[in-house]
Amino acid sequence: MTAEIISVGTELLLGNILNTNAQYLSRELAALGITVQRQSTIGDNHDRLAEWVSEAKARADLLVFTGGLGPTDDDLTKETVAACYGDSLAFDGEEWAKITAFFTRMGRATTPNNRKQAMVPVRGEKIPNAHGTAPGAWFEQDGRCAVLMPGVPAEMKAMWAEQVRPRLLARQNCTLHSLTLRVLGGESEIEYRVRDLLQSENPTAAIYCKTGESEIRITARAATDEDGAEICRAYARKFYDLLGEAVYDEDVPGLAWTLVHTLEAKGMTIAAAESCTGGLIARQITDVPGASRVFGYGFVTYWEQAKTRLLGVDPAVIARYNVVSAPVAAQMARGARLAAGADIAVAVTGLAGPDGGDDVRPVGTVYIAGAAAGRVAVKKYHFVRPDRENTRARAAHAALELALRLAQGRTPAGCMTVEEAACGASDTLAALDGALVGQ
Amino acid sequence: MTAEIISVGTELLLGNILNTNAQYLSRELAALGITVQRQSTIGDNHDRLAEWVSEAKARADLLVFTGGLGPTDDDLTKETVAACYGDSLAFDGEEWAKITAFFTRMGRATTPNNRKQAMVPVRGEKIPNAHGTAPGAWFEQDGRCAVLMPGVPAEMKAMWAEQVRPRLLARQNCTLHSLTLRVLGGESEIEYRVRDLLQSENPTAAIYCKTGESEIRITARAATDEDGAEICRAYARKFYDLLGEAVYDEDVPGLAWTLVHTLEAKGMTIAAAESCTGGLIARQITDVPGASRVFGYGFVTYWEQAKTRLLGVDPAVIARYNVVSAPVAAQMARGARLAAGADIAVAVTGLAGPDGGDDVRPVGTVYIAGAAAGRVAVKKYHFVRPDRENTRARAAHAALELALRLAQGRTPAGCMTVEEAACGASDTLAALDGALVGQ
Repeated sequence: MTAEIISVGTELLLGNILNTNAQYLSRELAALGITVQRQSTIGDNHDRLAEWVSEAKARADLLVFTGGLGPTDDDLTKETVAACYGDSLAFDGEEWAKITAFFTRMGRATTPNNRKQAMVPVRGEKIPNAHGTAPGAWFEQDGRCAVLMPGVPAEMKAMWAEQVRPRLLARQNCTLHSLTLRVLGGESEIEYRVRDLLQSENPTAAIYCKTGESEIRITARAATDEDGAEICRAYARKFYDLLGEAVYDEDVPGLAWTLVHTLEAKGMTIAAAESCTGGLIARQITDVPGASRVFGYGFVTYWEQAKTRLLGVDPAVIARYNVVSAPVAAQMARGARLAAGADIAVAVTGLAGPDGGDDVRPVGTVYIAGAAAGRVAVKKYHFVRPDRENTRARAAHAALELALRLAQGRTPAGCMTVEEAACGASDTLAALDGALVGQ
Repeated sequence: MTAEIISVGTELLLGNILNTNAQYLSRELAALGITVQRQSTIGDNHDRLAEWVSEAKARADLLVFTGGLGPTDDDLTKETVAACYGDSLAFDGEEWAKITAFFTRMGRATTPNNRKQAMVPVRGEKIPNAHGTAPGAWFEQDGRCAVLMPGVPAEMKAMWAEQVRPRLLARQNCTLHSLTLRVLGGESEIEYRVRDLLQSENPTAAIYCKTGESEIRITARAATDEDGAEICRAYARKFYDLLGEAVYDEDVPGLAWTLVHTLEAKGMTIAAAESCTGGLIARQITDVPGASRVFGYGFVTYWEQAKTRLLGVDPAVIARYNVVSAPVAAQMARGARLAAGADIAVAVTGLAGPDGGDDVRPVGTVYIAGAAAGRVAVKKYHFVRPDRENTRARAAHAALELALRLAQGRTPAGCMTVEEAACGASDTLAALDGALVGQ
């Protein structure tokens, strides 16, 4: 089955808004085994739209429209597409009642134009919109279909998931099951290792690169959801065989989510001490609803005196080893853990740029430390892309990764570990600093 | 002049990446006075691409391509478009030398396929790529043009700004000048107030909505940059007349940038105490390069005991007024200012949801406080969209706005203000709590 995605809206052609609908629908259609041949964006112009729809209808089995369902004269997708599919529109009392009720709730009056939104297909079908006033529409002629959804992403996504996808699945006489693996590690490296598994038709598997990690989405079409789940599980095992421990969770929104829920399950708490990440770690942890059950204290210690006063970092250690160093990261983690009374603390000190940095510590040099169970683990990174935002994001991700390994009671890879109680001792610090140079 | 934007790449049709190029180019073309009639995304398929280009060439004066310039067999945009414009490609020794030099620097060997990237138009022109290996191309036939740029956004944007835009301006015998106003306030309200000014042809003016603020971009075409600047300045005055103090800066990346530079100019420092925003304010301040000149301390006090221990909030005040209350916000701001020794501190306490909240304090209730010059200003918000991310983002933006007004020595609107020294006094606390109920 082939499809084209058609976004309607002059505001898209002016670049006033970013078209995220096309990407969302492309992914969803791919998961259904439907090949998207084109994505197009066109304006609210009747003649151009009619010409375009006729051509596209000849090319593709399914046309998926978003936008142009509003009440103004500009909004003419519905009538134009209806004509192209040999259909017409009729006034629908039920939809009109929903629209007037909505306006009454908002304390506003309807205008004659609003009646346009209550027009629905005569031969085709209207598609209920549970999240807005404009119903969608389904047209069909000679086995070719068109589906019209609103342009507002939240309304479109809800209509897709609740109404359109089930309809397409029913036509294929099957159901769809998805499983998402979250994988730590360099993006292109992960993609390279699993490349052969991404060629499959059913289940499909796609990889999406994120900061410091990748998302692998496996989707199976099957007669029942049970069968679909089994197919996904079997295929997931192939990824686990290739990636092992790099797969850190399944069907979760991200690393912070897994960290918060791992800590909660173990009854543990965490604190963060941040220099160059400047609050990014705390923000990512508190992005997770319910984070307050494991996180109470975050320290953004941007200045040296803040590291000293809030975290008890020894000024002599800063003077001797530099504020961007393994000993300072270790003392920050220890200090945050003690000040917060937490089970685990992570700390970051580094150079995000664009200024600062020299031959010994170029911009992109970051030390991450994690304190737990009487020990402190420190790791040195050098993020080569000279981009402040990227360095901060990668550093925060690395800190969350270290925190997760500590919460799991695992020894994080590539770290130097010392006794927490020895963090103030000069020989221990020297060892830390020496061992990590050049890593 | 009319244009179409054509993005080439199967990875876009699969939804693996979000197409941000189309929005960027649409904005840029609109600013040049060029009407974008369509945006299309097509795969790496020779026949479909050839058919598409022939049709589009008949419709539009200018076709703008991104993607498909890579070295693999899939990358066939250049040869296909060349044929459609009656041109062909020839091997270019200079480009090949650049490509081999790049590979040598990376310690890799070129493959025969890489020679494809050194093929350039015979009648048309190659476009230098200062940021990657693939040169762009310019084709022209019967007054119709096609320009081909790489798909990687950073390379595309650089080639556009350095090579393609100047070329289009030269054809129009003019130059382009832009001025961006940053405006505080509700997005749709701002748009409504300035709607008449958005209809202009030269200069053009476009509004882009952001969290808690809008960006208004004025662009003039003129014979010289001086003339363009003058046209923009004159048109900007019309916006100032309508919006007044809501315009907070010009040609800056955002509110945090203006805040940091305002503080720096005045030799002032700032601290932040965050509960529901969980580090977002600190992160936004430290997103600004050079923020360390004004920001040293951030406190993420997610738990009540953290507010008490780090900021000196009185536990009895929390017990009496609730942790989400004006008195607690005021004590957090005062405490952060004192603990950090800063000139200004902002504090946030609120309910971002999804859980918590009741009839008195529904989810979305947020108190923002700012301490400066011996006084504390407190403001109550209720963000109605029941969305954790939105509430946190809006609250952080409101805190930055309050901080900017304090840094400017202005009285922020809609605030209750009390003496900082009286923040512990029971009558002050009662007044704070009473005055803000129901706001």
